[in-house]
This record gives sequence, C-alpha cells and structure tokens, in this order.
Amino acid sequence: MTRLSSKHPRYVSLVTRARLAKAFRQGLVVPEGLIAHGRAEAFDYLLGERTPASARRAERLAVQWIRASRLPVISVNGNVAALAAEQIASMVRLEPRIAVEVNLYHRTPQRVAKILATLRRAGIPAPLGLRPTERIPRLPSDRARVDARGIGRADVVIVPLEDGDRTEALRAIGKRVISIDLNPLSRTSQKADLPIVDELTRALGHMAEDLRHPGRRTTPGDFQRADAPRLLRDAIRNINLRLTKAASARSPRP
Amino acid sequence: MTRLSSKHPRYVSLVTRARLAKAFRQGLVVPEGLIAHGRAEAFDYLLGERTPASARRAERLAVQWIRASRLPVISVNGNVAALAAEQIASMVRLEPRIAVEVNLYHRTPQRVAKILATLRRAGIPAPLGLRPTERIPRLPSDRARVDARGIGRADVVIVPLEDGDRTEALRAIGKRVISIDLNPLSRTSQKADLPIVDELTRALGHMAEDLRHPGRRTTPGDFQRADAPRLLRDAIRNINLRLTKAASARSPRP
Repeated sequence: MTRLSSKHPRYVSLVTRARLAKAFRQGLVVPEGLIAHGRAEAFDYLLGERTPASARRAERLAVQWIRASRLPVISVNGNVAALAAEQIASMVRLEPRIAVEVNLYHRTPQRVAKILATLRRAGIPAPLGLRPTERIPRLPSDRARVDARGIGRADVVIVPLEDGDRTEALRAIGKRVISIDLNPLSRTSQKADLPIVDELTRALGHMAEDLRHPGRRTTPGDFQRADAPRLLRDAIRNINLRLTKAASARSPRP
Repeated sequence: MTRLSSKHPRYVSLVTRARLAKAFRQGLVVPEGLIAHGRAEAFDYLLGERTPASARRAERLAVQWIRASRLPVISVNGNVAALAAEQIASMVRLEPRIAVEVNLYHRTPQRVAKILATLRRAGIPAPLGLRPTERIPRLPSDRARVDARGIGRADVVIVPLEDGDRTEALRAIGKRVISIDLNPLSRTSQKADLPIVDELTRALGHMAEDLRHPGRRTTPGDFQRADAPRLLRDAIRNINLRLTKAASARSPRP
C-alpha cells in the first residue's frame, strides 16, 4: 500500500524497502532480515543516502584486493540476493574469478534453493552454497558451513551486511575480510580488514564500475594497505557532520 | 534461533526484538513494522540504549500535559501494542482519563481485533478503534479514521513511533501532539509540539512512574511550555557525543 512517487525525496530508499518486502513474501528474506534492513535504513539516512568520499576510496581498494586475490568470494545472504543480485552479476561478468557463495544464519534447503535461483536468474552462472563441505572453526550456527571451492579456499572474502561473529572467525583462519556495513560501530565494521561503510547496492555498483576499468598490473598477493581505523573514523565523522548540518538546517516551526 | 544470554551487552534490545518477531508471527505486526523497528534499534544503539537527561525532561513535561489535558489519547499501532501494552496499561490505571485508540496504516479488521485483544489482556479496559466514526481531514490512508470519543475529541494526542503525516494533520486541527520517536530528524519529531526522543517502552515506563507521584495542582488547559527545537538539538548532541566517544574508545585492532 506504500505509494511511491519518484519525486519523493527518499524514493530510492522506498523502492529498496518495497523490493525487500517482496523478497520477504517470496521466502528469500526472513523477519530478522527485515529488522536488519531497518537498521541499515537508519544509518543510510544519517549518511544522507550518498556514498562519502572515504567509502568510495575503500571501494576502490576493495577492487584492488579482488585483483590481487587468488580466489575472491562474495558471501551472499537473503537480503543481499534480494537487493544486489544484479550488481554481483556485473562484478562476476567483469571478473569471472569471483566466486559467489550463499551463506545463511537461518538456513533451510528451501531458502538456499530460492536464493541460488535468484542469483542464477540475475546471470551468475555457478553460485555455491547448496551443499557445504567444510566448517569454519569456532563459529556456532549454520553460518560456519562453507564450500571448499569457495569460502573454504578463498583468500579474500567480501561479507556484505552485518555479521560480526563470522568476520572474526574468518579472520582467525587467515582470510582477508572486506565488510560492507553501514554501521561504523558494528563488530563487523570494527573487525574487518577493509570496512566499507556504505549502502550495499551503491558499494557493489561502484565496485562493478571500477572493475570495468583496467587497473594497474597487480601481482597476486600484493595487497595495498588498508587503514581500517581511519576509514571508520571518517565514517563516524560523516554521520556527525550530517547530524550537525541537519540540526542547523531545520526549517523554522510554524 | 537467536540465543539470548542475559549477559549479552545488548540483552534488552535482543529480548525486544524477539518479542516483536513473535508478535509478527501472530499477525499483530506487519513486515513494515519490522523494518521500522530496525530503524528504531539503530537510533537507540546510537543513544547507548539509555534515556538521556533531555528526553527524561520531555517525558516529565508530557505527564504535565496529560494532567492539564481535558482528554489525552494514546494512539496505538501494532508495534506499540506488541512492545508497550503493559506500560500503557499502567498509565491508564494511574490516570483513567487517558483514552487508548488503535490507529493503523495497514488496517484490516483482523489486525485491529488482535491488537485490541492484546491491549485488553494487558489490563486496558476499553480501548477504542474498532469502529472509527470520523476522519482527520487532509490525511490519506486509513490512519485518518478515528473515534469521536477518542482522537476526534482529544486535546492531547500521544503518537508513539514515527508517523510524520499524521503528526502534521493532527496539529492542523489543533491537537497538541506528543511524539515518541528515536530519530530526532524524522518528520514526526520535527513536527511534534513535544518530541520525546527515547525508546518507546522506556519513555512510557517513565511516564507511568511520573503519574505515580502526584504532581502540582494543574488547571485544565494550563500547559507548560515545551521548547521543541531545544529538545531536538539536545537529542542530536547526544548521538554526536556517543559516536565520538565510541570512535575514541575503540579497542586497538589485533
């Protein structure tokens, strides 16, 4: 029943919300995913629903890491498949070494199948995750179950959307973790090697854009240095600025 | 599958989330309500999940307005009934002039009936909203439908949780609107006569506490002045402080 006018100042955000609600009715997204999306909406609202310069730098660096990686994997959950399957498909088209693996906290065979179908429909030829073959040590829950050809063997794992435990567990077994999470204070952002504090579809869209342009020649294993604490400080500063600006720009009350 | 340990630093927030998910499965709460709750979680996280002093002042003032009011009404939607029926019941027990009225954006007779049953079970004797008799002018959607014995006749309306359009429409017909919304930048907070920027159950719980103590003798219509812009400025300052503190208190990375 939400009326969506493209003139609405928050049109993109409302379209995204409607899209997620639809995926929820189709069984791709769980109730917890809707709540998580609300959290993301709030933080994106505080960013002004735009990518700050420091996040854009992090996105460029992430693409350098993908190029320097032996096996980069994008980990996909229900929300990610619902919102960003197209952007991931573009990335895979431009850099076919990227593996895509479904990894769920609330795992059922039906949900995995639906998410895999969504990814295939978007043009991702061989997404992994249907039959996990390994476990990440010291991580309870089904999120520990991974594919030896995907996350199991990856050197770089892109973890979109909040997942603090798993970020820590992946780092503990030597993976480089790139997070995409709008909350700069979350454990995911705090623990990632390279935290991207930006909205999911914008972040992955920018990365696809960057993959379109040939980068400098990259030797495998030659990862440019990420200053994670600085990226997080910048992200926090962006929110502070926006709040302060919004506070002073408030229209006078009637 | 969420494991809730009372030692978890965000235990209350997780219990609240589980409670809302349950209400969702029972049909009290709609998918949009889950997303809205996620937004609230994010803002409460930024407040440190505590009531700031300025919000506590706003809550005291709200109780003074209830006492000065001829007919104070609390407007209830699915999320409010799921999370705060007990606090509202306490308020009504202590101040029986308070009317409680169900008002929904996503209105179906079944949902209204379920929400009314939840309110009655919590101890609210005669909640309104089953058969609205009037419309608020210039407000599209079912939220315009109100009861002449409740919101229709009220001089003070307490609107918990975000609802910008309705706040404006209620003010346009001369109601005093008290909002409870964690986002100080939302249209609800910006447009309310008295914005309380605090989490729903804490805010209503504090108001019930204040109703327990006899206030100064209040003449009907003698409303103490609310400095809404200042309350909002203070709320924004609280978020900024917390962000800055969190940024500097971050544990060093391994």
